[in-house]
Amino acid sequence: MPPPVAVTMGEPAGIGGEITLKAWLRRSENLPAFFAIDDPSRLQALARRLGWDVPVVAVDSAADATAVFDRALPVLTQPLAESVEPGRPAIANAASIRASIARAVELAQDGQASAMVTNPIHKGVMYQGGFHFPGHTEFLAHLVECQGDEVMMLACRTLRVVPVTIHVGLAEAIRTLTSDAIVAAGLATDEALRRDFAIANPRLAVAGLNPHAGEDGAMGREEIDIIAPAVAELRAAGVDATGPLPPDTMFHAAARAGYDAALCMYHDQALIPLKTLGFDEGVNVTLGLPIVRTSPDHGTAFAIAGTGQANETSLMEALRLAATIAANRQGHAP
Amino acid sequence: MPPPVAVTMGEPAGIGGEITLKAWLRRSENLPAFFAIDDPSRLQALARRLGWDVPVVAVDSAADATAVFDRALPVLTQPLAESVEPGRPAIANAASIRASIARAVELAQDGQASAMVTNPIHKGVMYQGGFHFPGHTEFLAHLVECQGDEVMMLACRTLRVVPVTIHVGLAEAIRTLTSDAIVAAGLATDEALRRDFAIANPRLAVAGLNPHAGEDGAMGREEIDIIAPAVAELRAAGVDATGPLPPDTMFHAAARAGYDAALCMYHDQALIPLKTLGFDEGVNVTLGLPIVRTSPDHGTAFAIAGTGQANETSLMEALRLAATIAANRQGHAP
Repeated sequence: MPPPVAVTMGEPAGIGGEITLKAWLRRSENLPAFFAIDDPSRLQALARRLGWDVPVVAVDSAADATAVFDRALPVLTQPLAESVEPGRPAIANAASIRASIARAVELAQDGQASAMVTNPIHKGVMYQGGFHFPGHTEFLAHLVECQGDEVMMLACRTLRVVPVTIHVGLAEAIRTLTSDAIVAAGLATDEALRRDFAIANPRLAVAGLNPHAGEDGAMGREEIDIIAPAVAELRAAGVDATGPLPPDTMFHAAARAGYDAALCMYHDQALIPLKTLGFDEGVNVTLGLPIVRTSPDHGTAFAIAGTGQANETSLMEALRLAATIAANRQGHAP
Repeated sequence: MPPPVAVTMGEPAGIGGEITLKAWLRRSENLPAFFAIDDPSRLQALARRLGWDVPVVAVDSAADATAVFDRALPVLTQPLAESVEPGRPAIANAASIRASIARAVELAQDGQASAMVTNPIHKGVMYQGGFHFPGHTEFLAHLVECQGDEVMMLACRTLRVVPVTIHVGLAEAIRTLTSDAIVAAGLATDEALRRDFAIANPRLAVAGLNPHAGEDGAMGREEIDIIAPAVAELRAAGVDATGPLPPDTMFHAAARAGYDAALCMYHDQALIPLKTLGFDEGVNVTLGLPIVRTSPDHGTAFAIAGTGQANETSLMEALRLAATIAANRQGHAP
């Protein structure tokens, strides 16, 4: 049996705790064994308050977690500085949130955890608490000393997308788009599809930037000047890349059947089709790291935190995909 | 019974003829009576070559078309300058294509046709043939003397979108986006939803431009400087407009239930979700004109023209929607 999956605390005033409890209640639905890195007493109190029958057991190691997973949610203890009120984040807890992530990375690196899944954090809270990374991904890349190699993929059951530019304004995304960035993302995606998704001959669809992919320069020259050369470079490197393709006709079912991942030029070109097709089940995967990391594709949802309404589907998909990737890397079934 | 719908020839070397024949074969599937404005002998020859049992009857008026529609495809004769070979457009036919459109406009203006549906034209061919309008829509607006009032809506069964900027490069779309353009499109959309779609209290969702709608200016200021003021102006004018909304979470089923049309800032923000959700059934509707005009949401498809493979679904949806809009404007059922 593979090692269990580590699930980080995330922002404890958000919905991370309750979706972790809910996922455990649905553990028979093809979920891998997992454990939380969190405060066991706050999770137990949360389950009781919501009337959910989730026994929470503090464990000392990932190995112990596997032994108790069937009958209880195993928790590696990460104490909190301040008690938690749902929807009201406390800056003082930022260090605990960060420590939970760092612990998961350590366990994934030394093989005690097969993978890590991160619950959502709130950037504003973390920044005020002294965290100086743009987000989870950059922090992870720093911890495993692979900065600059990380690439974000979003996946649902019917689509995988990789945005080449991410959290910048659209005008800046266009200004800063380069062939090099497209090639780097393409190479990382190709490698990940082989190693992590066990696709022997991955096919990449590369989106254009402009309407109708620019129509030979009539509506923008980025396809000619930036994207087509990147596609040529990827093909020369042995990647089965096609494009630049008209963005609007890439994402219907028949088009999706023609590729394994779509390389997108900006955030919403990737996220609009992904969230239109698989809103509750989207998973964020960080490619290019030596450890396996996935996360649910939503935020802390302070507005509904503590009510039990939060949807656990994306976390469950993140757990399943983490286990699948870890198994593919090991060359055995999950 | 309402007058029939006029269907233009479109580029005769494209798929317009064969999808018109196919739609007639499926006329019992809730289609309105319609007639083509085309060369009857070339349509009859096309049907024979494809082995389709479509009797083609030349008629002298729209009224005659209604009488024959059940047993034959009625065609108002528009002669061609040159005989047609599928996939090989002839510049000499551009004047006939144009005349077919102008005739449909006349018939729709004087009420002999309840609406018009335009088959796809090829802009390159038309330009070489002396046509000097950017596309169908601008030509129609010119003919009915409403230039500048036309607004494009794309509709499928589960989504209506209105792009504020359309056929320009993405960088230029951002540079030229104005509050005035958003307000004008919003007012036209609100009016069309009431008059053409019979929605008493239409709700408009207004998309942001940047990822997460800019996150209060952290990723672009267009939401603050351009879009939010336009939403405020629309609301002051009595339009139930909401936004700017994060573009990626606007188009899943639960989000779509909250509005009747989405106002989008650029072509692919509108077209990606529309074609992802309803690739074969998308319909283009021109709002803001005194006549009713729809069109299938695809091109001339020279590569498959003449083979009979072209999908007629979008044309059928365009016919149904044209009839529905015409009926709503008249205040009676289609």
